Amino acid sequence: METRATTIEAYLRTVDELPVSPTLDVTKVRSFAESFTFKQSFAPEEAFRLIASELIQSQVHTPHPQYFGLFNPAPTAMSIAADALVATLNPQLAAWSHSPLAAEMERHLVISIADKFGLPRSQADGVFTSGGAEANQTALLAALAQRWPDVALCGLRGLKEEPVFYVSAEGHHSFLKVARAAGLGASSLREIEVTDDLRVDLDSLRAAIQRDHTNGYAPFLLVPTAGTTGAGVIDPIRHIGSLAREQGLWFHVDAAWGGAAALGPELHSILDGIELADSITFDAHKWLSVSMGAGMFLTRHPDILSRCFATQTAYMPKESEGMQVVDPFAHSLQWSRRFIGLKLFLSLAVAGWDGYAAAIRHQREMGKLLRDRLIKDKWKIVNRTPLPLVCFTDGETKWDTNICQRIANAVVASGHAWISTIQLGKRSSPHFVLASPTTKRNRITSMLCSLF
Amino acid sequence: METRATTIEAYLRTVDELPVSPTLDVTKVRSFAESFTFKQSFAPEEAFRLIASELIQSQVHTPHPQYFGLFNPAPTAMSIAADALVATLNPQLAAWSHSPLAAEMERHLVISIADKFGLPRSQADGVFTSGGAEANQTALLAALAQRWPDVALCGLRGLKEEPVFYVSAEGHHSFLKVARAAGLGASSLREIEVTDDLRVDLDSLRAAIQRDHTNGYAPFLLVPTAGTTGAGVIDPIRHIGSLAREQGLWFHVDAAWGGAAALGPELHSILDGIELADSITFDAHKWLSVSMGAGMFLTRHPDILSRCFATQTAYMPKESEGMQVVDPFAHSLQWSRRFIGLKLFLSLAVAGWDGYAAAIRHQREMGKLLRDRLIKDKWKIVNRTPLPLVCFTDGETKWDTNICQRIANAVVASGHAWISTIQLGKRSSPHFVLASPTTKRNRITSMLCSLF
Repeated sequence: METRATTIEAYLRTVDELPVSPTLDVTKVRSFAESFTFKQSFAPEEAFRLIASELIQSQVHTPHPQYFGLFNPAPTAMSIAADALVATLNPQLAAWSHSPLAAEMERHLVISIADKFGLPRSQADGVFTSGGAEANQTALLAALAQRWPDVALCGLRGLKEEPVFYVSAEGHHSFLKVARAAGLGASSLREIEVTDDLRVDLDSLRAAIQRDHTNGYAPFLLVPTAGTTGAGVIDPIRHIGSLAREQGLWFHVDAAWGGAAALGPELHSILDGIELADSITFDAHKWLSVSMGAGMFLTRHPDILSRCFATQTAYMPKESEGMQVVDPFAHSLQWSRRFIGLKLFLSLAVAGWDGYAAAIRHQREMGKLLRDRLIKDKWKIVNRTPLPLVCFTDGETKWDTNICQRIANAVVASGHAWISTIQLGKRSSPHFVLASPTTKRNRITSMLCSLF
Repeated sequence: METRATTIEAYLRTVDELPVSPTLDVTKVRSFAESFTFKQSFAPEEAFRLIASELIQSQVHTPHPQYFGLFNPAPTAMSIAADALVATLNPQLAAWSHSPLAAEMERHLVISIADKFGLPRSQADGVFTSGGAEANQTALLAALAQRWPDVALCGLRGLKEEPVFYVSAEGHHSFLKVARAAGLGASSLREIEVTDDLRVDLDSLRAAIQRDHTNGYAPFLLVPTAGTTGAGVIDPIRHIGSLAREQGLWFHVDAAWGGAAALGPELHSILDGIELADSITFDAHKWLSVSMGAGMFLTRHPDILSRCFATQTAYMPKESEGMQVVDPFAHSLQWSRRFIGLKLFLSLAVAGWDGYAAAIRHQREMGKLLRDRLIKDKWKIVNRTPLPLVCFTDGETKWDTNICQRIANAVVASGHAWISTIQLGKRSSPHFVLASPTTKRNRITSMLCSLF
């Protein structure tokens, strides 16, 4: 145990000195993995040290202060402790009676976060998920079940109409997977074009719904995004919510990353209208800095999860019969599952809402710093967002996709920082997310030096 | 960090002295959870100690040697260490280039376990899942995609025929959830009746398929169970596999628990026919004693996962373009996800295949011991299985469902052991699973004393 704690502490103490990303060598990592035939057995400390050391050499270090990547956090110390404790106690989060406190801690978190979004506490419900994709899948199933209660029994083939739903062309591609997995097929997903500032074009959205009605399709769900993966833009949530209400459609906000704005008083207003949502996706493993994965599905419909997922079995524990509690397995896509919520609970207990508000304020300042520096150096910022995600070009035509990707590849290969690129309209741009509490002013300066 | 390691070590050292299960008090656990308003902040060690101590008082202790429960393991020390390390390094298992070694370690495990089941190594593929439910869901989607390649685009409503599939009436209810979530609806699931020994009745299965053909339905999937939740029975895998081949149906074996028999040389033959499977569900967080959740979907069709889940995005990392590797997000229902496989990798590195074979042998011996003791005391064993799962009655008519449940409730409430009950046909029975390496001979004797 001592070696293991030491290894973990040493990593956290020294990660900022490591190359942010490894050299990619398929043969090397594959050979290492396959060298374990499991025919001989290793001493525990030897196995741990050997494998930990190799893993540390062979990954992109999301906890590194120069990781400007895709919303993957430097995990809080409390989430590491929580994951170790969860693995030790190994509670079973299928039956309430098996893990009563764990179930109630998750319930309290779900309601507390829903409350931050302005959902009414008395109706708020939800569930932790493996990630945002499962939360989005849950939203789709909830929307279908609300509109067509017979679907659970009779399936989609029993419907007279063809369901269709709407997501921004800049929205997350998990909706494509989800549309397929739900039996709707990719063709049920209407990707709505965006305006010049990369937000859903409301006129196009209205026109698409109208066209679908005319052609006999059945619109059932609108999904604005609060913080797109590409440019961090916030769709016009209130307008889309009003449209959903007017048309009687389920209104789901994909706030996987940007939803954290609800915890920062200065930013809360950018989510204006989210309080109308029928459901919300939020990922605690993004801006709230807990280790992967900790997705959340939140809703204002307290009965919808049971309607989607409840089932009677002869073999589930019965000790809580008659109590006013919810068995998690009857309330989510998953069945037996990990106690996902503890890492958020412990992190929140230590940071408090104020601690998270301060962290969010810090990232925004770092975002502003990066933007200001780039503008001063004559770069052109190409995304408009209040969130700390920065995209830019040289303002000339020379900066084509290949050059941009080559710059990013060179930075990544140097191990000095990790950045990605993004296609915004016809042009490619570097893509910086300021997501880590350890990214201070000097780290941004230093990264810029390595870039140019 | 020190307090945390100490807390974890102390728990593991003393868990066998704790009551196995807590008194259920909704108000108490709810009040404790809600007492955290997150308005003030706790010192890290104080928060950890307070919450860990309360959790320890308020859960069923799956690591306790008198936990005879539903396949939830006493986790290996290596899986606890692995979960802590995973939380620390926090690798992102969506893009191969982000976590190349983690991705290759999971790939190696998938192929190694598939090999144990007799799937051809050169074709074997698969993915870790949040649990068995997601693995079963993956199987359903794979079976649909294989039979109707257009489903991914056009959805189920585009099909001329109504898909139906077959699971034992004793199979896992996750298939009901899965049928709903896939848009097939619960009515697509044919629960096949069982014979007196609780195995799928082959004649009924054949008749059901024939009837569905006659009525214009489209059978596409057969699912035998290797180790049912209720009685631990193994369906006639080879016969069902032959039937599936003959009829051109996808053949999926739900071996979530019983699949571990593939690791015990004496038990391997009970899985006879599993090598014919198109796909297999296996849960490492059951008999392989790793912490929750570590489901696996295994298949002999190397292209099927990509056909189900692949999608192109502008924002995913591109460093591995051109390399012969698989990006995990294009290969599973999940997108960003936790490094699930490390806890199995480390546990296997330390135990080796031989260590797991010995553990399986031990549980079987404990199962035999319990059975022999019960028979000697004139109880009647009512389930036939080579696996260590024991159900029994008094052989008289007096033992009705209420009495049985009252006995189980009394045992659970005493905190002396944890058992559940199961309905087998018309009668109720206590349900004992011998799942923990720490359950030795004296623990079984002691549990029997507390029972009667």
